[in-house]
Amino acid sequence: MQVSLQINARWIITVTPDDRVLEHHAIIIQDDTIIDMLPQDQSSQYTPTELLTFNHHAVVPGFINAHTHAAMSLLKGLADDLPLDQWLNEHIWPAESALVEEPFVRDGSELAIAEMIRGGTTCFNDMYFFIDQTAAAASHIGIRASIGIPVIDFPTRWAKDLNEYITKGLAVHERFHSDELLTFTFAPHAPYTVSDESLKTLQPIMDELGLAMHMHLHETENEVQQSLQTHGMSPIQRLNNLALLSPDFMAVHMTSLSDTDIQLLAKHQTHVIHCPESNLKLASGICPTTALLANQINVAIGTDGSASNNDLDMLGEARTAALIAKGSTLQADSLPAKQALRMATINGAKALGLDKKIGSLEVGKQADMFAINLDSIETQPVYDVISTLIYSASRSQISDVWVAGKRLMQDHKLITIDESALIEKIKRWQGKINPFHHHPTKAV
Amino acid sequence: MQVSLQINARWIITVTPDDRVLEHHAIIIQDDTIIDMLPQDQSSQYTPTELLTFNHHAVVPGFINAHTHAAMSLLKGLADDLPLDQWLNEHIWPAESALVEEPFVRDGSELAIAEMIRGGTTCFNDMYFFIDQTAAAASHIGIRASIGIPVIDFPTRWAKDLNEYITKGLAVHERFHSDELLTFTFAPHAPYTVSDESLKTLQPIMDELGLAMHMHLHETENEVQQSLQTHGMSPIQRLNNLALLSPDFMAVHMTSLSDTDIQLLAKHQTHVIHCPESNLKLASGICPTTALLANQINVAIGTDGSASNNDLDMLGEARTAALIAKGSTLQADSLPAKQALRMATINGAKALGLDKKIGSLEVGKQADMFAINLDSIETQPVYDVISTLIYSASRSQISDVWVAGKRLMQDHKLITIDESALIEKIKRWQGKINPFHHHPTKAV
Repeated sequence: MQVSLQINARWIITVTPDDRVLEHHAIIIQDDTIIDMLPQDQSSQYTPTELLTFNHHAVVPGFINAHTHAAMSLLKGLADDLPLDQWLNEHIWPAESALVEEPFVRDGSELAIAEMIRGGTTCFNDMYFFIDQTAAAASHIGIRASIGIPVIDFPTRWAKDLNEYITKGLAVHERFHSDELLTFTFAPHAPYTVSDESLKTLQPIMDELGLAMHMHLHETENEVQQSLQTHGMSPIQRLNNLALLSPDFMAVHMTSLSDTDIQLLAKHQTHVIHCPESNLKLASGICPTTALLANQINVAIGTDGSASNNDLDMLGEARTAALIAKGSTLQADSLPAKQALRMATINGAKALGLDKKIGSLEVGKQADMFAINLDSIETQPVYDVISTLIYSASRSQISDVWVAGKRLMQDHKLITIDESALIEKIKRWQGKINPFHHHPTKAV
Repeated sequence: MQVSLQINARWIITVTPDDRVLEHHAIIIQDDTIIDMLPQDQSSQYTPTELLTFNHHAVVPGFINAHTHAAMSLLKGLADDLPLDQWLNEHIWPAESALVEEPFVRDGSELAIAEMIRGGTTCFNDMYFFIDQTAAAASHIGIRASIGIPVIDFPTRWAKDLNEYITKGLAVHERFHSDELLTFTFAPHAPYTVSDESLKTLQPIMDELGLAMHMHLHETENEVQQSLQTHGMSPIQRLNNLALLSPDFMAVHMTSLSDTDIQLLAKHQTHVIHCPESNLKLASGICPTTALLANQINVAIGTDGSASNNDLDMLGEARTAALIAKGSTLQADSLPAKQALRMATINGAKALGLDKKIGSLEVGKQADMFAINLDSIETQPVYDVISTLIYSASRSQISDVWVAGKRLMQDHKLITIDESALIEKIKRWQGKINPFHHHPTKAV
């Protein structure tokens, strides 16, 4: 049988419910879809147009970055080691007010997508402004993306009021929603920047278009305390009263949670997006992943934007998630490597409602995946390939990446992005953004 | 003037007390020593035998890994996500009892040194058995090392009793102590495995030979509680009563500390070695670095052994130290990037008593350093080069490494180690060690 692609791999890490690892197997791909996985020595029935052999690699489902602000990659390292209010008020917001329009979002999104592909990410869930630029960049480059239609109760360069946020957002949805790689959510910024009235306005539109909601929630203890003072209840309880908690809701951050909050999340099968490095770096707190998982709540992983991380490295993020779960519970068996890998792949797919299509390597699913070379000093010996991947490997060992069967990186070189031209473009941005920079270090 | 080496760099991160960064400067090296640092356009007085130009790189003092067990790199990933007692009793100790003799330590040390050099580490502070093998490997490969003479109150394959631990250790010291790259410490394992009597026996020998002490201490709350029960005081107080706390003492881990403990450390200028990732992974706790630094205690960084990390990545370790300081204090300005870099370089030198010789790039110091290429997608733009190094860069961007002016890695290729031969050797070890492996993942 003629097929488009056969990949022979030393290991295939499937991320199926039984954490199956296939050794010396082949993945058979027809166009964008995995149609078979079988031992290499039994694959002679297939005649692939392209045959690739990875004798030292693991092939892994592509990472799903379940929360980011791609365009903010232009601001990475602009202002570090500062308290949250100073970081936002003196650096990030002034820079955004001055700069964030089409070219910033176009080039920042391209930079972020380049970094994500290089790190094995094949799908990202975005929240930002000028979403037409991010949608166009993702579509053009060929990465899968979920584009958040932003809503916030104050004017930005993107929109002046709720009506314009909705109208402009829906116009982009209309333009791109038939693109196979793109899906959309509504992305109200946070409970403290979006009113009950605004949220109620979104509900019928979400229902009509079948869109999920993606929102920052319980990012800090301070946010929860302010809500208790203002609304007499936690933000989660407020959203519950608005009937917004559901399997179509992605709650991002979630560092400060009462037992009641956790029970509400569990009851409504709400998804939690854990951004461990951003939460540490901005001193927001630590999401209680072990307790959430014990309550059968789906927990996915996001990097957050580059300005508070400062990278879009999902492999590193999964490792950090595994480490701080143990450190914060003082239980060394909390969040084992295979659980961290699920959170970075299939759980992100579940959060996005795409788990029938992506998130694991199984027959019938899209061929979204990467190959990582483990034959290096850093990752030898290999006793358990999932442990090696999560605890010892780094993203720089990822050599090849595919989305929907199309190769986006080949032997460490991006195919649909000109890296040198992109770096030159970013250097020009640096000159424009420099005035907003916090200078902790004396340069001579 | 004829000199051996001139390096022109885009940035030189000096790690001097004022955190100075030199742009477009040259480092002039004569044999093993930095003899000048000046603007490139004023360097015509020097005629270098070798001239290297790094237009996109930062040159940085080599990392000092202030605590590791190099040979345990053969056990990385052997048993992950297990409670400490199960990890030690069912996996690590049985494997060590069966395997740890000369060949294991020789090959494991070579693997660890290869990984460390590739990650920019130019000096490591080791604690293990068969120290002749580790000393010989370091000397042969050309990396700087501090070799800990092990002492533990039970027999191992290396020595049967206190007398033999001391005698064999001192024989290795005698054989290697004139090697310019090697220094020695006494390394009693931990307060709960070494008695007061044993520690008292070491004291006059340390004094006579001018050796410092390097010891696991307050690794877990449980260790402290057991000491309170057994000795009526914390391990730190016990060591203070033995007059062991001093600027010649390196206390490793230190996750569980009372105010009294901290005051004792400060009073005696005892050095603390922080191993953040190992402490997280084994769920030991979190060292209160912010409080220690506020008390003017010198804090350096170590990776610990590969079996509990699972890497020897000092750049990643410095980043984790910066992140968890913020996350555990809820202060986003805790442990800024430049402080994390100091902890990974000059503070390690201070702990080892080598800060006149290494730990920063200054005239008169040894040329121990690395070059890291920042012209990549992951590290553009660069607003503050130290922030970029700590928060965005990864060790895979390190291209060149020197120890005492001698290049150990050139354009990502190790010079004094045959990497392919080493990897083949490690694969043979994997076969021998596999029976001790914990199998969390089902392989087909």
